[in-house]
Amino acid sequence: MTLALPTTLLRARSVIEPALYAAVDRLDPQSRDLARYHLECGGKAVRPALALLSGRAVGADETLAVPGAVAVELVHNFSLVHDDLMDGDVERRHRPTVWALHGAAAAILCGDAMLALATQVLLDVGTLDAIEAARQLAAATQELIRGQHADLDFEGRRYVGVDECLAMAAGKTGALLACSAAVGAVLAGAPRATVRALSTYGAELGLAFQLVDDLLGIWGDSATTGKPVGSDLRARKKSLPVAFALAEGGPASAELMRWLATAGPDSDADIARAANLVEAAGGRAWAAEEATRRLALAESAIAGADLDPDVVDELVSLGRFVVARES
Amino acid sequence: MTLALPTTLLRARSVIEPALYAAVDRLDPQSRDLARYHLECGGKAVRPALALLSGRAVGADETLAVPGAVAVELVHNFSLVHDDLMDGDVERRHRPTVWALHGAAAAILCGDAMLALATQVLLDVGTLDAIEAARQLAAATQELIRGQHADLDFEGRRYVGVDECLAMAAGKTGALLACSAAVGAVLAGAPRATVRALSTYGAELGLAFQLVDDLLGIWGDSATTGKPVGSDLRARKKSLPVAFALAEGGPASAELMRWLATAGPDSDADIARAANLVEAAGGRAWAAEEATRRLALAESAIAGADLDPDVVDELVSLGRFVVARES
Repeated sequence: MTLALPTTLLRARSVIEPALYAAVDRLDPQSRDLARYHLECGGKAVRPALALLSGRAVGADETLAVPGAVAVELVHNFSLVHDDLMDGDVERRHRPTVWALHGAAAAILCGDAMLALATQVLLDVGTLDAIEAARQLAAATQELIRGQHADLDFEGRRYVGVDECLAMAAGKTGALLACSAAVGAVLAGAPRATVRALSTYGAELGLAFQLVDDLLGIWGDSATTGKPVGSDLRARKKSLPVAFALAEGGPASAELMRWLATAGPDSDADIARAANLVEAAGGRAWAAEEATRRLALAESAIAGADLDPDVVDELVSLGRFVVARES
Repeated sequence: MTLALPTTLLRARSVIEPALYAAVDRLDPQSRDLARYHLECGGKAVRPALALLSGRAVGADETLAVPGAVAVELVHNFSLVHDDLMDGDVERRHRPTVWALHGAAAAILCGDAMLALATQVLLDVGTLDAIEAARQLAAATQELIRGQHADLDFEGRRYVGVDECLAMAAGKTGALLACSAAVGAVLAGAPRATVRALSTYGAELGLAFQLVDDLLGIWGDSATTGKPVGSDLRARKKSLPVAFALAEGGPASAELMRWLATAGPDSDADIARAANLVEAAGGRAWAAEEATRRLALAESAIAGADLDPDVVDELVSLGRFVVARES
């Protein structure tokens, strides 16, 4: 079933949308229209929500974190627009992707424009804290690129280890969530240890999130994911459950490795059998447990920090919602 | 004939190369290797040279401008890597382009990484002047994207006016040259009027440069341009000489418009005839005169500014070299 979005996410969306669209309106008309089209497909606003909470968690006024929330959302969407093109994905949330509708060149430029805009939004704040935020966001962007490079590299390989797969996910998903969960505190000039605790929360939540996303990529229904059933398997994606299953080494593991070397096209039965092999080799159970473990690590990072306890509760609820998506 | 590179350019290259490669070495291994491959094809370093001169022009030590020089060169090369992919160009300076050698996804990521790195290089300086430089660079990047959007849009059109073609070139070429010619002065905290004079120098030089580039795209020989002869015509590119010729309205203009609507493939004789039509409609002479006029505007902008006269001479020589490429 699909869970209703919690108040924190709905609220984050409504708080940042005016600033987000005001920023996008600064773009050239074509990038602006494409960015608007892409943004209107409406993500869950997890990153802006984390950004806003991280400001409030250190006692700052919520408005202080808004440029940070807008900037992380822009970087997230820059990466989605470029990734959809690189991965050849023609649909996102039941609508054609930007490149599928407007061509590769327009999608490249729209992504480039959103990336540059994220920096502009932070630098326009003009404080030294905002510069630190912009530096951390640029570093997270490089991690994101590193992760996507690794992800693409995995496609051409027969075997991917669990550790390198986790490192890929830490780059592709963890780094920007870590930045999101800390950016409000950075903008508020919070002490380094506090920023680090929030950042760890985001990084571990990011891994939990990716593990759940990978589970949904194999076992999620199309209504929840907005993608065809089993699309990750069809693409021979070495996602985390698959990496675990390949390392397990038993008969299901060996059969899975043989199947991954085939080229398709695959019937629905082929995909269902591949999913069963991942499950038989322990990939499904491991990923679910690892997601729970990472979430616990995330929660313990902020439990001991000097943060507003009410806001810590909100962060914990948000994290649990994100990881419970599959249930 | 190909002119020997002047000392200013050779010197700029040697001054910034250590810092440029040190920056690139911070990237993930794949982006780093691709960026190195791309940079080793060796541009003329016009932008870094302008950046270094702009610092010295306001009396600053040359080292102060180095991060600015590196940042503009990174943004320039980010745009080349992405543009080569968007334009489908398989060769640059007689070597395969990044996407042609490593695929579209790797080229997109490599460009993204260089764009984010440019911001990092400036923010790492840590001064308020560097933040202003980063803001101006991000604004120039948006202009560059706007220009490339317009350029691609022109491809699908039968007619492009001279004014909109100049506006496109101001974005695609002028904005980053304007930023390059001012960034050293910005980093040195020079007064606003001085920065504006240098920026105007770069913007007008950029248009002169683009006019000459467009002339070379039609009449340049392959040894100078590193591209097949007449490649802009083959691509039905509405470059500045073509836009002027289309607006001229005489018989050659009309025939050119009809030819541009054909789809090819073109023989060498077809390309030669199209070039003759552009020339007969006045496109060649206009572009050459307009380049001269823009160069004069550039020079007059810095002639009256509060700048070191020796460095102004170097800027003028550099500009004249750039515009004399074709002779």
